[in-house]
Amino acid sequence: MVNAGAMSGSGNLMDFLDEPFPDVGTYEDFHTIDWLREKSRDTDRHRKITSKSKESIWEFIKSLLDAWSGWVVMLLIGLLAGTLAGVIDLAVDWMTDLKEGVCLSAFWYSHEQCCWTSNETTFEDRDKCPLWQKWSELLVNQSEGASAYILNYLMYILWALLFAFLAVSLVRVFAPYACGSGIPEIKTILSGFIIRGYLGKWTLLIKTVTLVLVVSSGLSLGKEGPLVHVACCCGNFFSSLFSKYSKNEGKRREVLSAAAAAGVSVAFGAPIGGVLFSLEEVSYYFPLKTLWRSFFAALVAAFTLRSINPFGNSRLVLFYVEYHTPWRRKTTRLGKYPVLEVIVVTAITAIIAYPNPYTRRSTSELISELFNDCGALESSQLCDYINDPNMTRPVDDIPDRPAGIGVYTAMWQLALALIFKIVITIFTFGMKIPSGLFIPSMAVGAMAGRMVGIGVEQLAYHHHDWIVFRNWCRPGADCVTPGLYAMVGAAACLGGVTRMTVSLVVIMFELTGGLEYIVPLMAAAVTSKWVADAFGKEGIYEAHIHLNGYPFLDVKDEFTHRTLATDVMRPRRGEPPLSVLTQDSMTVEDVETLIKETDYNGFPVVVSRDSERLIGFAQRRELILAIKNARQRQEGIVSNSIMYFTEEPPELPANSPHPLKLRRVLNLSPFTVTDHTPMETVVDIFRKLGLRQCLVTRSGRLLGIITKKDVLRHMAQMANQDPESIMFN
Amino acid sequence: MVNAGAMSGSGNLMDFLDEPFPDVGTYEDFHTIDWLREKSRDTDRHRKITSKSKESIWEFIKSLLDAWSGWVVMLLIGLLAGTLAGVIDLAVDWMTDLKEGVCLSAFWYSHEQCCWTSNETTFEDRDKCPLWQKWSELLVNQSEGASAYILNYLMYILWALLFAFLAVSLVRVFAPYACGSGIPEIKTILSGFIIRGYLGKWTLLIKTVTLVLVVSSGLSLGKEGPLVHVACCCGNFFSSLFSKYSKNEGKRREVLSAAAAAGVSVAFGAPIGGVLFSLEEVSYYFPLKTLWRSFFAALVAAFTLRSINPFGNSRLVLFYVEYHTPWRRKTTRLGKYPVLEVIVVTAITAIIAYPNPYTRRSTSELISELFNDCGALESSQLCDYINDPNMTRPVDDIPDRPAGIGVYTAMWQLALALIFKIVITIFTFGMKIPSGLFIPSMAVGAMAGRMVGIGVEQLAYHHHDWIVFRNWCRPGADCVTPGLYAMVGAAACLGGVTRMTVSLVVIMFELTGGLEYIVPLMAAAVTSKWVADAFGKEGIYEAHIHLNGYPFLDVKDEFTHRTLATDVMRPRRGEPPLSVLTQDSMTVEDVETLIKETDYNGFPVVVSRDSERLIGFAQRRELILAIKNARQRQEGIVSNSIMYFTEEPPELPANSPHPLKLRRVLNLSPFTVTDHTPMETVVDIFRKLGLRQCLVTRSGRLLGIITKKDVLRHMAQMANQDPESIMFN
Repeated sequence: MVNAGAMSGSGNLMDFLDEPFPDVGTYEDFHTIDWLREKSRDTDRHRKITSKSKESIWEFIKSLLDAWSGWVVMLLIGLLAGTLAGVIDLAVDWMTDLKEGVCLSAFWYSHEQCCWTSNETTFEDRDKCPLWQKWSELLVNQSEGASAYILNYLMYILWALLFAFLAVSLVRVFAPYACGSGIPEIKTILSGFIIRGYLGKWTLLIKTVTLVLVVSSGLSLGKEGPLVHVACCCGNFFSSLFSKYSKNEGKRREVLSAAAAAGVSVAFGAPIGGVLFSLEEVSYYFPLKTLWRSFFAALVAAFTLRSINPFGNSRLVLFYVEYHTPWRRKTTRLGKYPVLEVIVVTAITAIIAYPNPYTRRSTSELISELFNDCGALESSQLCDYINDPNMTRPVDDIPDRPAGIGVYTAMWQLALALIFKIVITIFTFGMKIPSGLFIPSMAVGAMAGRMVGIGVEQLAYHHHDWIVFRNWCRPGADCVTPGLYAMVGAAACLGGVTRMTVSLVVIMFELTGGLEYIVPLMAAAVTSKWVADAFGKEGIYEAHIHLNGYPFLDVKDEFTHRTLATDVMRPRRGEPPLSVLTQDSMTVEDVETLIKETDYNGFPVVVSRDSERLIGFAQRRELILAIKNARQRQEGIVSNSIMYFTEEPPELPANSPHPLKLRRVLNLSPFTVTDHTPMETVVDIFRKLGLRQCLVTRSGRLLGIITKKDVLRHMAQMANQDPESIMFN
Repeated sequence: MVNAGAMSGSGNLMDFLDEPFPDVGTYEDFHTIDWLREKSRDTDRHRKITSKSKESIWEFIKSLLDAWSGWVVMLLIGLLAGTLAGVIDLAVDWMTDLKEGVCLSAFWYSHEQCCWTSNETTFEDRDKCPLWQKWSELLVNQSEGASAYILNYLMYILWALLFAFLAVSLVRVFAPYACGSGIPEIKTILSGFIIRGYLGKWTLLIKTVTLVLVVSSGLSLGKEGPLVHVACCCGNFFSSLFSKYSKNEGKRREVLSAAAAAGVSVAFGAPIGGVLFSLEEVSYYFPLKTLWRSFFAALVAAFTLRSINPFGNSRLVLFYVEYHTPWRRKTTRLGKYPVLEVIVVTAITAIIAYPNPYTRRSTSELISELFNDCGALESSQLCDYINDPNMTRPVDDIPDRPAGIGVYTAMWQLALALIFKIVITIFTFGMKIPSGLFIPSMAVGAMAGRMVGIGVEQLAYHHHDWIVFRNWCRPGADCVTPGLYAMVGAAACLGGVTRMTVSLVVIMFELTGGLEYIVPLMAAAVTSKWVADAFGKEGIYEAHIHLNGYPFLDVKDEFTHRTLATDVMRPRRGEPPLSVLTQDSMTVEDVETLIKETDYNGFPVVVSRDSERLIGFAQRRELILAIKNARQRQEGIVSNSIMYFTEEPPELPANSPHPLKLRRVLNLSPFTVTDHTPMETVVDIFRKLGLRQCLVTRSGRLLGIITKKDVLRHMAQMANQDPESIMFN
């Protein structure tokens, strides 16, 4: 808690340096920010603007602009995130079709756009409009037969390999941070960790381009997790334009929380779900102001996307989403050769996917078909039921019917596709390309769900007399909807992977638009969460965060052990005593040696080594800057100058060198707890106040220090010792 | 922070008393709870259950039941809240109609139910089915004419007066806490305040019954705010059945937050909006676990309501809601005679409301009609447009048309109804009956909106060539929807009164069911919030809380002043020193005198008066209980026994009486800050950790104490000094 008092100085504290040190208030890479300090700094900035605003009209206008800048940033994020998502959608459509053929009227048209203006009237004819040429038609002028099939097959594989190679090369060369889904890292960043460049402009550009490439290549991955990362990059970019956000890591994270909501909003077409996702899954510090702004950004983004990509955004197409990987793999032998790995996996995917109609098409289309109910006009194989010619019911009301040959074929193909999808997704995830897991998880769940649904439907048709069916299935009436089974399966699979709960149901609610479906969806989400929790409490994001060793203090983990602060603080028994500074007896050289020999973030300042009464805390970084500054600019500061942190200089012998006053870098309100404080409370304090460290005292005497890392280490230890204790919470 | 170490005792601390004191851990009425302490106590309870669960199968099952009890409570709350809301709806329907007439086939049928089974086929005939008799028909056998009108008028007033008189008498005699909407008090209770009986069983019963009476009486109030109170009473009732919740004020508040969500859910038919309302407006401590459970309770409640009251719950009927009063009135002359006040207001309401068709019907029906668009089959006066007989368009597509005589009549009546509604609502709100402001606010907004909508529509019809209309209004096409104007007006009025933002939009979204309407609704909500904020930052709930002087620390108020802890702590300069206990030199009598002479909640314990080094904090209540206990049960404890808080007894002269060990009531980890800590940080700590008090030290020496009340008083002072400073945040 380097507080406002110490940082901004209230007059008498600022007496030896007029301007603040350069770089004060910035953090090093892979360090944790101090939330309370950032908040203090923002309040200071705000106070300055408010008091200035009374001086002139111009300053008043500037203060108004400052107050509105948050909304402006949200608007810009929404616009850019929506635009990027729209452009990605259009580009993916085109490049996915490019694997199969090309449009003669304009090569940048997708199959659908190409045939849009065609004169053919029926849907089937329109699909085969003359302007759209398959590669076999274009190259050897054959549209049917074995050789055409093989040529198309080869072109499909070739394009897929080309896209994948381009993507992995771009990521390797320009933006290594662009790989993966990015959500675990964003979660960590939002909790206060610094990862420089992770949300940079290069990452934004490369991730957008490579996302189009990998989705088009047909790999078993989705674009929704990466879209959240892209939106956060937009948020970071726009916040760098306003000093209110660029200079304050805490305020910047408010913007990033809202940007994450906008990302989910465009990925799912679900603005409210996006806000809840950001609140429930991603964000750490989420004040109410952010709730409202997130909602604004999410809405703007959803509308921008809709106005850019007006085709193909039926409710179900919005459904096409994916987030993160459930399978963990730190290194494989192939992992050392990322480009080769991508090429091999893409080749295998393309070779196996092409022959099966359910894997050849894009995963989004597959999910859409699985969710759809069989209407009278449905041409899908899945709806090839045997019609009773004597039936006189209206066309729209489809009763239960026996399955036709098409349904049986579809079941086999679906089963194969399911196995393939599960296996290939495991290998795809974790490659060095942008990839999300939402779409593959949903596809797996939807395939399994649809198969179960068809099975139950046929059971009900053939066994109306069974007790389970008798009550609500009259013969000839429609009582089983296989599409709903697919939807529930998708929700369950997704819930198991990510452990999203409320936001998952809300997203599904926004897509299906009715309270009717909430009950099965909620039951699925809760059941899958419970089942998955039995295997391990961590969702995919938390697992990834732990795998990478990020210092993330999860709000969801409850700490219920009976340890005290004294058990966790350092120094432990037998360890050398804590490195402390005394308020007026150490020389500049002593301090420089201490700084050189240790790598602590800061040092407690005590009255004297004997009394050990705590008076404050000095940050390492600021201590170094202050000494460097004083040595360069202040007269008479030498290695054996006494450093003092008190208001008045200590009494020194006559010929001693000029002492150095360092009260300015002393935080007079360090956060302290007593040694008897239960760790439960300490964990709560670290979480809620976002501390970096906390000092431990007993009746005013300094005993030790607890850092965020100590807390995390202790929590991990306790969880390993007694994993059951948190099970029933 | 009376912590686990001190409360539950780790062996050696429990050496002089086996069982805990009776009443330890309970709070007095109108006191604030200590969140950290409640959390500690729950963790202890949880630890005990977990360790016991390994002992036997029975204990294991008990631990499972304990873990599931949260969900069970949510289920029960959802079921009861939904049931009560459904019963209230049905009863209100019947009693509202009772003011106009009675059903001959069964007197407990409402008008609609009575005519449901009638043979008449057209809608108009069905309304006049023979089984339903107006009072004039029943009593004097006349259905038309002046005398029938007057008789019906009188009966209407009479019933209204009877209902209102019954309601106010019941509230006065049985449950004074049942009046008003209850949301400000619930907000205060959730923030940690104790108001005994506010959520009791009598309040539940009386509020439910009187709510039916006042809504039926036709007063200008709504049932939705009170429904939230009713749901919270249900939550309190069920949590008293499980010791996990009944014995822990912190855990109980988690249940109440979820119950509030269930209340909004049944009031609006909007489960997601309910959860967000609870999160945004009502709750104080809202962990993620509560989010999920609230959602569950809200869903169960919505479904229960729907299954009880299947009629009349079209989307728009769900819309019928109301919350709180925007006009503040502490006392009026009439206010001293609450029964008379209610009678007078009811009489005036009934006399003025009857002649105007827009005020005679229930407010819910009025809002429904105002929101509806004019379809071809609409029989409302508001849709009396002049049809062009030459028009050949299909029936459903209604183009712009000139207004007919009915529309002009309706406009006049609406204008009168609007003025009446605004005035009477001001007088209605604050009476000693259950009353919410949501419905009246929405009605006022909807009336104004509809009138503006019709005005714009007619302008567009007559002036197609104006620039504003030219671009999107082709002649003959429908370009203005007056119903949407009404909806936007309702949202704006509601937003201005309650300052709900995200939850308001989500509730509207759930009722209208489409992204299309979100933009105008959001624009209305934001604009009305900004306009209303210009008149004062407080929403109606906050205003009410301040009016009643509850100790509520709002998370939304930002504290941006530069004061330090030393400016706020007591004792101030010139005040007598802080009342402290010393660790081993005061006698029982000294302490008893100190307790008698002061009314502090607790006393800091220091090493000695000279050193003033802080070692802990002792709660007043526990000190009293411990001394009383020791005097009754322990041998040799007399008035001049020395009390000690240390591990070992102090060295005493040979003939001194047996000393009293009180380490057990000493909290060894009191919360401390230094005197240099900025108040901004202190406010943050109080808010986030839910403290009651905090001690102020400098290098281990105790300087003073800051209580929650000191913080609130200081915040109010600073806000008065410089009201502008928070304006631009």
